[in-house]
Amino acid sequence: METGEKKGLSIILFSGDLDKAMAAFTIACAAAGDGYSVYIFFTFWGISLLRKERGEGRGVLEKMFKLLLPVGPEKTGLSKFNFYGLGGALMRLLIRKRGTQSLQDLIKMAMERKINFIACRASMKILGLRSEELIPYDLLTPGDAETFLQKAAASRIQLFI
Amino acid sequence: METGEKKGLSIILFSGDLDKAMAAFTIACAAAGDGYSVYIFFTFWGISLLRKERGEGRGVLEKMFKLLLPVGPEKTGLSKFNFYGLGGALMRLLIRKRGTQSLQDLIKMAMERKINFIACRASMKILGLRSEELIPYDLLTPGDAETFLQKAAASRIQLFI
Amino acid sequence: METGEKKGLSIILFSGDLDKAMAAFTIACAAAGDGYSVYIFFTFWGISLLRKERGEGRGVLEKMFKLLLPVGPEKTGLSKFNFYGLGGALMRLLIRKRGTQSLQDLIKMAMERKINFIACRASMKILGLRSEELIPYDLLTPGDAETFLQKAAASRIQLFI
Repeated sequence: METGEKKGLSIILFSGDLDKAMAAFTIACAAAGDGYSVYIFFTFWGISLLRKERGEGRGVLEKMFKLLLPVGPEKTGLSKFNFYGLGGALMRLLIRKRGTQSLQDLIKMAMERKINFIACRASMKILGLRSEELIPYDLLTPGDAETFLQKAAASRIQLFI
Repeated sequence: METGEKKGLSIILFSGDLDKAMAAFTIACAAAGDGYSVYIFFTFWGISLLRKERGEGRGVLEKMFKLLLPVGPEKTGLSKFNFYGLGGALMRLLIRKRGTQSLQDLIKMAMERKINFIACRASMKILGLRSEELIPYDLLTPGDAETFLQKAAASRIQLFI
Repeated sequence: METGEKKGLSIILFSGDLDKAMAAFTIACAAAGDGYSVYIFFTFWGISLLRKERGEGRGVLEKMFKLLLPVGPEKTGLSKFNFYGLGGALMRLLIRKRGTQSLQDLIKMAMERKINFIACRASMKILGLRSEELIPYDLLTPGDAETFLQKAAASRIQLFI
C-alpha cells in the first residue's frame, strides 16, 4: 500500500451461495476491523441475502422467481455439492459444531463494523424486489454500476464474488 | 483514483452464463461510458458468447464439446436455477417485460463504446474453436495470460467473473 | 504499472473446479515468469487441490464431507457440464490430445516458480482437514483473511476465482 492512499475494499457480491457469501463477509469483516472502508455491492443472487421477507410478486413470472430466490442467509445453499439443500444443511451443522461463525454472525458483525451495503437497482428491478422487502440497515442504500466504479476506483482491493 | 493514473478496467470473463455475462457487460459499458479503457478477456466458457456459428469439430470428442458449448448470447443459461434452460428463458422474459437491456443489447453497446475484446488463445485451442467462428469485430484480437497481465497491471480495476 | 511499485498478484482460489483452477494457475505461472510476487490463497473447495490423501474424518458428518471433497487435481470436475465427472474426463482427454498443459503440470510449474501457497485456516477447520494431509511444499503456509489483505494490498492485481 502506498502512503497516502486510503485503505479501501470493494466487493461485488453476485453470488447468494452460503459458501461464497461466507468468504465475502469474512474478508469484508477482517478489512473493516483493520480500518478499511468497505463497500459490498449486492447484485443478482447476492441480493437474496438482504431479503427479510418473501414479498408479493406481480404476475406469474415474478411470483415464480421470488419463490425460487432464497430469503435471507438461513436459506442459502452451497455453490457445490448442494444436493437440493442437504449440503447447505450439513455445512451449517459443521460450522455450528466447530464453533466457527455462521453467515448470520458475519453479516451482523459487518453491520457493527459499519460496512456499506449497496443494493443493485437493476437487479432489484429484474427480480421484482422492493426496498421494503430488504433488511433494515442505515448503511444500506440503492446503487448502480456507476456507484460501484466510483467506490472501486478509490479502493485498493476489488473482488467479484 | 490518483491523479495522473489512467482509468482502466480489465475483466476476465471466464463464465458464459447469462447472469454473470450481464453483470460483466453492465460494469464494462458503464466504465467505457465514463471514459475508462476497458478490456474484456474471454476465456473458457466466456468465449461461447463470441461464437457466431457452431463450426465443425475434428474428432468425436471435439464435436461433442462444440455441441455442448452454447453459440452466442441468446443460448446461454443461468449460473443458478437454470433448470435445463427454463431459468434462462424466464430471465429473458423478465428482462424484456421490464424494458431492461438484454445481453445482446449490452454486447452491442460494448462494441459501440469501443471496448477491447480479447479471445484467450489457449481456451480456443482446448475447445477447438477457430477465429472465423467468432463474431466479426475490429477490436476483437487473440491473446494470452501475458496480454491480460499487461493490461490488468495498467488498470485501476480488475475483476474475474 | 507505476514506477517503484512492486509487481504483485494475489489470487483467492475459492473454487476447486478443474477449469477455474487451470485459469488461476495459468495466470499465476505467467505472472511468476514475468517477475511478479505471486500469492495463491486456497480457501474452501480450492483447498481440495492441495490434498495429498483423503485422511480420517472425526464423526459421521466430517467423514461425509471429506469423502465428497476431491483429493488433488486429478479428481476435480468442471464448473459447468460436468455430468457427474464425465465432462472433467473429456476435458482432460482434450487437453492431453492438444498437448496443452494439464492442471498437474501447472501446479508443478507454480512450485518451480516459487509461487506462495497459503491454506486458509478457517476453511481447513470447517472441512476437518489437517496440515499433514496436504502436499509437501516449503512455500505452503497456513493463513487467514488478514494474511490475504496484507498481501493483496501490496499487489497490483487481485482476483477471486
